[in-house]
Amino acid sequence: MRFKLIIAYDGTRFAGWQVQKNGSAIQPLIQKALETVLRHPLDLTGSGRTDAGVHARGQTAHFDTEVSVDPKRLALSLNALLPPDIRILEIEPVASDFHARYSARSKIYHYHLSLEPDPFTLLYRHPVYGSFDLELLKAGAKEFIGTHDFTSFVNTGQDKSAVRTIYRIDIVEQKGGIRLEFEGNGFLYKMVRNITGALLDIAAGKLKPEDIKTILAARDRRRASASAPAKGLFLFQVNY
Amino acid sequence: MRFKLIIAYDGTRFAGWQVQKNGSAIQPLIQKALETVLRHPLDLTGSGRTDAGVHARGQTAHFDTEVSVDPKRLALSLNALLPPDIRILEIEPVASDFHARYSARSKIYHYHLSLEPDPFTLLYRHPVYGSFDLELLKAGAKEFIGTHDFTSFVNTGQDKSAVRTIYRIDIVEQKGGIRLEFEGNGFLYKMVRNITGALLDIAAGKLKPEDIKTILAARDRRRASASAPAKGLFLFQVNY
Repeated sequence: MRFKLIIAYDGTRFAGWQVQKNGSAIQPLIQKALETVLRHPLDLTGSGRTDAGVHARGQTAHFDTEVSVDPKRLALSLNALLPPDIRILEIEPVASDFHARYSARSKIYHYHLSLEPDPFTLLYRHPVYGSFDLELLKAGAKEFIGTHDFTSFVNTGQDKSAVRTIYRIDIVEQKGGIRLEFEGNGFLYKMVRNITGALLDIAAGKLKPEDIKTILAARDRRRASASAPAKGLFLFQVNY
Repeated sequence: MRFKLIIAYDGTRFAGWQVQKNGSAIQPLIQKALETVLRHPLDLTGSGRTDAGVHARGQTAHFDTEVSVDPKRLALSLNALLPPDIRILEIEPVASDFHARYSARSKIYHYHLSLEPDPFTLLYRHPVYGSFDLELLKAGAKEFIGTHDFTSFVNTGQDKSAVRTIYRIDIVEQKGGIRLEFEGNGFLYKMVRNITGALLDIAAGKLKPEDIKTILAARDRRRASASAPAKGLFLFQVNY
């Protein structure tokens, strides 16, 4: 039987989803907790990696077991074993050909910016100082929507093709700041943070919205803006 | 000239508002920053103390200076000197007889409970497990409203009189939990946390709403429930 997990975590103290040379990762902690409860070795496959310091409200993963499982009880058992900054939100049985990574239709990431001083969101929002033009930001966001070769917005050492489709980038005002909602068919290493970095430069007047066309065409990471910090980024939802 | 400050802080790493024997406090940090900017010694008087680990969205304080001050610029200068978990939200000139403590008409405290697993509010909400009856909680809250001798809900070593008036205790549902809003003419040491502790026992069915009358009449701290943890408590607003 195959099961799907929906997982939330505060990425602050972790080296990322997957095992890294340095620091502790999230995936092995959940896999170990599952093995402890189900009493057999297994593989927990996530929808994709999240970097050090990146958070998740809706990471997904799957695993197989022959043990008879009550999903609600299993979630309670896992949460009792896991640290409080990792929470299993849901477990459900899925078809045997479901795959957390390959079956995904789209992924939604949120990037949180704070525009007012707030001591309570220091670990979850990137504070923006100085000039910030929301209309310029919106115009810049439009330049990224659609199917593009995102090589200029991807850090090296990744997939061969950097062609991806972004369905939407919504800018949502929320108390004390704004939230950028990215939905696409897939995002490469640091892609959301690199796009956000460019959008911050556009909002600050350092870059023009129309410059994005040239930067995309250059297919050169060195042409684009710096990456936005990890702490503002949340893997919000994976759609199947 | 007298000025009033509105201050927000994350209390997690502080020993409280006022100087303590152990650990760092918030009031001396702000006072020192003011002295650095204005270049003279001064006294910063708060609306009252908050305990170790208690947060504030709207602590208030006042100080006097003969230096000509632009309130907005002063707030920016202070925020540049202060750590990011303490933020000066507002500074305004007030009448010379304004007093942050004695002029206060009412104080509003919020206590946040989380009823769903959430890795992102571990430092700001008290998680409630097990049975939780919202209707019982509401009935219990009503027992505290009005003028009472709160001796049973105050930790020792305090004012002579524990008679205070609570104007309202509103129970507000919010995403993932609830918020208790307390407004009163003054709250004594640990009073909000002690009342919240009793309300949690009532919601869990360990105590009946009508038991509060007996406990109040006993005027004995040992008769009441344990204190709710500091991390869920926010000094939300001081009204003048």
